[in-house]
Amino acid sequence: MSDKNRLDQFREEREIMNEKVMDLDHLGIKRFFNMDTNTYRDGALPKQTKELLGLVASAVLRCNDCIDYHLEQCAKTGSTKAEIVDAMNVALIVGGSIVIPHLRHATNTLELLEEEGTLKTV
Amino acid sequence: MSDKNRLDQFREEREIMNEKVMDLDHLGIKRFFNMDTNTYRDGALPKQTKELLGLVASAVLRCNDCIDYHLEQCAKTGSTKAEIVDAMNVALIVGGSIVIPHLRHATNTLELLEEEGTLKTV
Amino acid sequence: MSDKNRLDQFREEREIMNEKVMDLDHLGIKRFFNMDTNTYRDGALPKQTKELLGLVASAVLRCNDCIDYHLEQCAKTGSTKAEIVDAMNVALIVGGSIVIPHLRHATNTLELLEEEGTLKTV
Amino acid sequence: MSDKNRLDQFREEREIMNEKVMDLDHLGIKRFFNMDTNTYRDGALPKQTKELLGLVASAVLRCNDCIDYHLEQCAKTGSTKAEIVDAMNVALIVGGSIVIPHLRHATNTLELLEEEGTLKTV
Amino acid sequence: MSDKNRLDQFREEREIMNEKVMDLDHLGIKRFFNMDTNTYRDGALPKQTKELLGLVASAVLRCNDCIDYHLEQCAKTGSTKAEIVDAMNVALIVGGSIVIPHLRHATNTLELLEEEGTLKTV
Amino acid sequence: MSDKNRLDQFREEREIMNEKVMDLDHLGIKRFFNMDTNTYRDGALPKQTKELLGLVASAVLRCNDCIDYHLEQCAKTGSTKAEIVDAMNVALIVGGSIVIPHLRHATNTLELLEEEGTLKTV
Repeated sequence: MSDKNRLDQFREEREIMNEKVMDLDHLGIKRFFNMDTNTYRDGALPKQTKELLGLVASAVLRCNDCIDYHLEQCAKTGSTKAEIVDAMNVALIVGGSIVIPHLRHATNTLELLEEEGTLKTV
Repeated sequence: MSDKNRLDQFREEREIMNEKVMDLDHLGIKRFFNMDTNTYRDGALPKQTKELLGLVASAVLRCNDCIDYHLEQCAKTGSTKAEIVDAMNVALIVGGSIVIPHLRHATNTLELLEEEGTLKTV
Repeated sequence: MSDKNRLDQFREEREIMNEKVMDLDHLGIKRFFNMDTNTYRDGALPKQTKELLGLVASAVLRCNDCIDYHLEQCAKTGSTKAEIVDAMNVALIVGGSIVIPHLRHATNTLELLEEEGTLKTV
Repeated sequence: MSDKNRLDQFREEREIMNEKVMDLDHLGIKRFFNMDTNTYRDGALPKQTKELLGLVASAVLRCNDCIDYHLEQCAKTGSTKAEIVDAMNVALIVGGSIVIPHLRHATNTLELLEEEGTLKTV
Repeated sequence: MSDKNRLDQFREEREIMNEKVMDLDHLGIKRFFNMDTNTYRDGALPKQTKELLGLVASAVLRCNDCIDYHLEQCAKTGSTKAEIVDAMNVALIVGGSIVIPHLRHATNTLELLEEEGTLKTV
Repeated sequence: MSDKNRLDQFREEREIMNEKVMDLDHLGIKRFFNMDTNTYRDGALPKQTKELLGLVASAVLRCNDCIDYHLEQCAKTGSTKAEIVDAMNVALIVGGSIVIPHLRHATNTLELLEEEGTLKTV
């Protein structure tokens, strides 16, 4: 499996499994997923800023899947690579060296997002 | 490797590695493992309820191996799929969206437990 | 301040502050609070079991306010002191000695709930 | 002690204790504090955004002192109350109901910052 | 209440509450407390080193009561102030700035231990 | 892939990714990495003790990559297998059964370090 496939495979599995979670047919879970999506919509803060907040929260709580998801959303909402890396630095200082393996993971994901043209580098 | 094998492989590796942990021959570690087993025996609360407690604790602390172990124990002690999913919903609300990747993982494990006939669906 | 007042004061401050959180008038926050309340209603699992799940989740995540809230709900939904203590033991084993200060706190809260007649001891 | 005094007392104790931490005269600790300060300076992201990131990281990691510090910095760097509350909502969804006691605390701090004129409400 | 009283009060309340936890009369909890005590006895590693390990674990998991307990044990088993501060620096780097409020707390406790003559400063 | 390769592959990927993190060219991140390295140098505490502290911190925070790194450093700085296992026991008691999957992982890593001659067994 090439590195490129890691990100594509994550997206595919995430979508399939999210559907299976919906198929569990639990109203509370369905409502949570709905609310989760709404959280990152434009509000008092724009979606772009909220995706950066979601990224840093995911990084200090050390969840690679959540980091990958928010990295992609950050890229899509127009944050540059330098801005995303600056946000990851905040996560590193707040969360400490235990965040470093996730910083390595995020660096690889940024590389993949750059290769496929999702991430602006300038 | 098929999905079916994921659960079987987990069980096998878990057992082999637990034996190797015992072979470290540390009295404190041995006593902890013994106490851990005793914790889920019938007491003031029945084993079935305590396995649900172990599941939710594992989910909010976000440990897939622990989730898989307790999902199997929940199924074996007679909790239905609907009850287990209802317990996972508590974990999701208490622990937040950072629990979602583990909910996806648990959903896949429930599917495997259902396929092999360990989990009651009615 | 007597110990009795600790629990009463917590209830009062919690209610006042929850109202102020509502007054922030953020739709996402309001919906989360609403969903949180619904989570513990009777479903596939009865409210009584879900309050025990909420207690253990709160204990391993080490939040005294959450522990106090769920202890009261556990008592009100009919769990006995012995059952609640058995649930706390699961939290102690899963979460480790770092949970002990919260076990001390919970023990004090149980004492207060017993004194005021909220907790069944038999 | 009035509520107003809670925030003033926090600031005073924080400053005194930070000086005592410096007096420990450990080079590594001194360098960490220096780096921590630099992290929130204008960079690829402006200080204002980074303070919001620090706030959300503090909220999901559930540290009231850190929350209070970043709330003040958010207010001082020009984030409005509505923007700060929107950021706290992200923390609530990512971190779950275990964040609620900290949301109550933050709501009280916002009130104090508003009363003393540090926080813009429009 | 003077600062000196903070540490004395902690010791007193801790002892009273530990006895009440024992009075809950739950075998699993009693065994856990017994095992916890045994963990820090001389073994392959001396008690002095294990208390430093307990301190760092408590600091990165951010529990002030646990930090205070292990600080006292570190002092009693002969670790100097400089050694304890060096251990706290490891906790700060691994755990990040979220550990800082606990570093402030520990600095105050070290001061109290020094004043009462429990801590060696040379 | 054999078990032996797991450790070698981790070392190689870790080094490659650390270089890519440096290539992100963020001054704050570079300084953090530098400080992280300095933390474990001989100071008031010897490097050997600080690597044990880093190991226990990594174990209670449940990061396998961090555990593997510190296990190797502990072995290289002269800690014996029995001493390392005794340190892991402290992590197990403080962090609870949620640490067990990481204890299994560490046991496997110790085995690999022993096979390649990095770890002293006497």
